Amino acid sequence: MAFQFEVLKTDASGARLGRLTTPHGAVDTPVFMPVGTAATVKGLTQQALRELGLQILLGNTYHLYLRPGHELIRRLGGLHQFMAWSGALLTDSGGYQVFSLANLRQVTDDGVCFRSHLDGSQHFLTPEKAIEIQMALGADIAMVLDECIEYPASQERARHAAARTFDWARRSREYFRNARGEQPRQVLFGIVQGGAFADLRRQSAEQLAELDFPGYAVGGLAVGEPHALTCEMTAEATAHLPADRPRYLMGVGKPEDLVDYVRQGIDLMDCVLPTRNARNGCLFTRHGRLLIKNARYAADPRPIDEACGCPVCRTYSRAYLRHLFMANEILAAVLNTHHNLYFYLDIMRRIRDAIREGSLDALHEQLRSCGAGAGALSAEAARP
Amino acid sequence: MAFQFEVLKTDASGARLGRLTTPHGAVDTPVFMPVGTAATVKGLTQQALRELGLQILLGNTYHLYLRPGHELIRRLGGLHQFMAWSGALLTDSGGYQVFSLANLRQVTDDGVCFRSHLDGSQHFLTPEKAIEIQMALGADIAMVLDECIEYPASQERARHAAARTFDWARRSREYFRNARGEQPRQVLFGIVQGGAFADLRRQSAEQLAELDFPGYAVGGLAVGEPHALTCEMTAEATAHLPADRPRYLMGVGKPEDLVDYVRQGIDLMDCVLPTRNARNGCLFTRHGRLLIKNARYAADPRPIDEACGCPVCRTYSRAYLRHLFMANEILAAVLNTHHNLYFYLDIMRRIRDAIREGSLDALHEQLRSCGAGAGALSAEAARP
Repeated sequence: MAFQFEVLKTDASGARLGRLTTPHGAVDTPVFMPVGTAATVKGLTQQALRELGLQILLGNTYHLYLRPGHELIRRLGGLHQFMAWSGALLTDSGGYQVFSLANLRQVTDDGVCFRSHLDGSQHFLTPEKAIEIQMALGADIAMVLDECIEYPASQERARHAAARTFDWARRSREYFRNARGEQPRQVLFGIVQGGAFADLRRQSAEQLAELDFPGYAVGGLAVGEPHALTCEMTAEATAHLPADRPRYLMGVGKPEDLVDYVRQGIDLMDCVLPTRNARNGCLFTRHGRLLIKNARYAADPRPIDEACGCPVCRTYSRAYLRHLFMANEILAAVLNTHHNLYFYLDIMRRIRDAIREGSLDALHEQLRSCGAGAGALSAEAARP
Repeated sequence: MAFQFEVLKTDASGARLGRLTTPHGAVDTPVFMPVGTAATVKGLTQQALRELGLQILLGNTYHLYLRPGHELIRRLGGLHQFMAWSGALLTDSGGYQVFSLANLRQVTDDGVCFRSHLDGSQHFLTPEKAIEIQMALGADIAMVLDECIEYPASQERARHAAARTFDWARRSREYFRNARGEQPRQVLFGIVQGGAFADLRRQSAEQLAELDFPGYAVGGLAVGEPHALTCEMTAEATAHLPADRPRYLMGVGKPEDLVDYVRQGIDLMDCVLPTRNARNGCLFTRHGRLLIKNARYAADPRPIDEACGCPVCRTYSRAYLRHLFMANEILAAVLNTHHNLYFYLDIMRRIRDAIREGSLDALHEQLRSCGAGAGALSAEAARP
């Protein structure tokens, strides 16, 4: 099965219902991709991921490059076989992680020199190297290396990073094309940068579009800027990307914000929020965040969310989940992660249904309440 | 369903095939009970436990008393409901844990004064209190409080502890009978003590038998004494316990030793070995222990044990499991625990089949190889 993308419907807001076909199965879009940093979605077995209905997962090039190493994974048949995941996979380029290392890296036009967070060893990541690693991993979708900048950043800095990102995109594409024979079924996405500047975002999108990638990402957002600005920059990018290619907004988002991104014409998203929050005991519900360590849940026999159909909510009480969390039990992370991912995937199902039925506005209203903080849970919802 | 025990067959060695009926389902014996210390078998969901075919679990009174507290569990409907486990449950009396606290406890004829390992708070555990806690937990089987001693210990010390254990057994039984209305379906087992002295073991068993418990445990073994001595003391105890009651050898054992205990007429066993070892990366195989962190497994595409039918062995490679372990991923503990428990339960299935078919000798021979240390794995088995 070759890579293919089909837009089935676009609503008035620009939200798209689509279907991505990959060598490892179809992906219904808009889709949220859970993050499987080190070849595992922390706490969940691949069986649990299948039971959740997951069609696509993200792997982190930076982490896998350092441990266990991309050559080892290549030797073992690639990332799919290594982690026993038969669904679709996307790998990032490692850029975001490397740029997050702050004091541990140095950027030149050639690439990024960085020190491993594991052992301090020095590495040099170039656009070509990022592709070489990702070809060894063999995910269905690979990403070009881009330069991520902080927010706020000056226009000069954003312009410079966007130009470098474009140069790296060309080099990545070139290397990818030449090495194609190695991974004939893999595709490479370009990444729009441009900071918080609309003209730079537009220019970045237009330049990338000329390189004719099979898909495009919007990067460098959700790094601290206001939500409205994230949406504005995303809209600026998608407006100048070809409508027939999938668009991936990197590193988002909160449950209550997912619809907003979809309305800017986004088809794919990824974020550590559901999984990382789960491990920290922050659970998502229709009524907002629930911090399971709160003493008010100590004797609460109700599920996390009474309207949730996930196996955790159908089986376990808040009291039990609080106990597991307070006792630092492994099962706390396992069950909390399962619930939070189910919650995200359920929102995405509802978003796809709403686009199909033309009812995205109504869903948007309903999902606002997911944004309530832990303290804002209604008395009814919070009291045992 | 009332508590009931039926011996279906006894072979020449004294091994018994049986069936224990509890208010929460039947248990095929001989059985190995995984330990669910804090109301969770560390790393496994209750769904996974069901898929493993588990019929009975053990909970730790000491841990549950301290956190989340037995009154909380009572209020939430008991341990079954609290942890969402519909199979059978047995709780220990807390004695073993308290006696393991060494410097944190003081024993008198009244009971044991100890300090919590969690916060240093002081508690006093009496035979009556141990029953009160276990009635709040509401497991199908509760245990009397006993005095556990170290090995080696003098005959005088062993005699004294056995006498006190017998006195506590009477008090436990008395309290249990009087409070019976509270948990009419729960049963209480007595515990044989007597250290490493055959005459004390015999006397302890005979005295306890007069108290007419519905089941009996053999305690204070597997605390450092030679395996042959464990077997000898067990045999001495079971020889003087009524044949129509279930017998539970506490805190055992290694996979290669399970048959030995069954041959001493033991019906139930429990041990943290499969679960704790799993978290430490020590995996059980037909060929002996496999330490997954060993570099020789880094690129090994084979399952833990090629003859194992568990979902872990059917899905994941040693290379992946080693990666997860080295990266300290939650999934390492989850998958390793699943495999080790499957391995134990599979041995118990084979033991029951062998008793039924009169082939326990042959199985005994086969299981010896499970005892090989990590270094002793045959070259064939260990080399990728």
